[in-house]
Amino acid sequence: MKEITAIIQPHTLSRVMHALHALPHFPGVTLFDAHGQGRGRGTGGAFRLTEENFTFHKKTTLLIACDDAHADSIVATIVQAAHTGNKGDGLVTLKDVARVIRIRTGETADQAL
Amino acid sequence: MKEITAIIQPHTLSRVMHALHALPHFPGVTLFDAHGQGRGRGTGGAFRLTEENFTFHKKTTLLIACDDAHADSIVATIVQAAHTGNKGDGLVTLKDVARVIRIRTGETADQAL
Amino acid sequence: MKEITAIIQPHTLSRVMHALHALPHFPGVTLFDAHGQGRGRGTGGAFRLTEENFTFHKKTTLLIACDDAHADSIVATIVQAAHTGNKGDGLVTLKDVARVIRIRTGETADQAL
Repeated sequence: MKEITAIIQPHTLSRVMHALHALPHFPGVTLFDAHGQGRGRGTGGAFRLTEENFTFHKKTTLLIACDDAHADSIVATIVQAAHTGNKGDGLVTLKDVARVIRIRTGETADQAL
Repeated sequence: MKEITAIIQPHTLSRVMHALHALPHFPGVTLFDAHGQGRGRGTGGAFRLTEENFTFHKKTTLLIACDDAHADSIVATIVQAAHTGNKGDGLVTLKDVARVIRIRTGETADQAL
Repeated sequence: MKEITAIIQPHTLSRVMHALHALPHFPGVTLFDAHGQGRGRGTGGAFRLTEENFTFHKKTTLLIACDDAHADSIVATIVQAAHTGNKGDGLVTLKDVARVIRIRTGETADQAL
């Protein structure tokens, strides 16, 4: 199984959600509000952190657990839908997951997804 | 070492915390507010995202780092305490961690937990 | 590639950011607001959860994706800058990442970082 973490521009979320809903195997998604800085150290941004004047940009983070077979198509879907071509478009990371348990049913591993 | 990510219904948090406190090895926990959608694409929900009318449900996410020996009991504790039997009960995922460092002491690996 | 998750005291964030900016390879960082409890079960804290009287402390969580070669120096930088010597200083965890994709460019793997 895999866990996908996608850090995207917040304004692309509805495009990403539409694209994920169009997948035959919509995986479920958990969203987090976040602030971030890319390799450019946050220049030109909107959110300044107190007296230190660090500039962070608003980001939305998606967390998705999926089985191995669907990971590539979900990642590709997010990358395409979240793409604007501007700096700050974000990152998608893919990690291995040892186990997933669905709380309602107690299903584990691939059965849970 | 392992990292446990649990996405639960917010109203089950106090039950989950009580259950975790009752463990002989309470691991420490970090909490995040989140919104989510399960495989049902968020029907019947409470939170609508702007003009796109996506429906998300409030979720609480727990992040726990623990050593291998305690992972199974922590996961089972969360699954049991967060269970209501309703859709939206959430997921628990277990991932391998390469290294953990406790900032206060500099302890690493299993010593840090 | 690696993913670094650092749970720190919020008031150390500006020190941590200064230290990360001073690295030759600033990796970009995503920040999340969080609440947490260490192994001491949250005694002496500031934030109480509803009727159950759980005490959580405000935490800031940093998420960083980086290549293997830079992981150790980034971890050491965070641990040093976030250190106060008090309980609640937090944890840094290091996980393996299977793949990273930069959304703007489509670059994958080490090229993305």
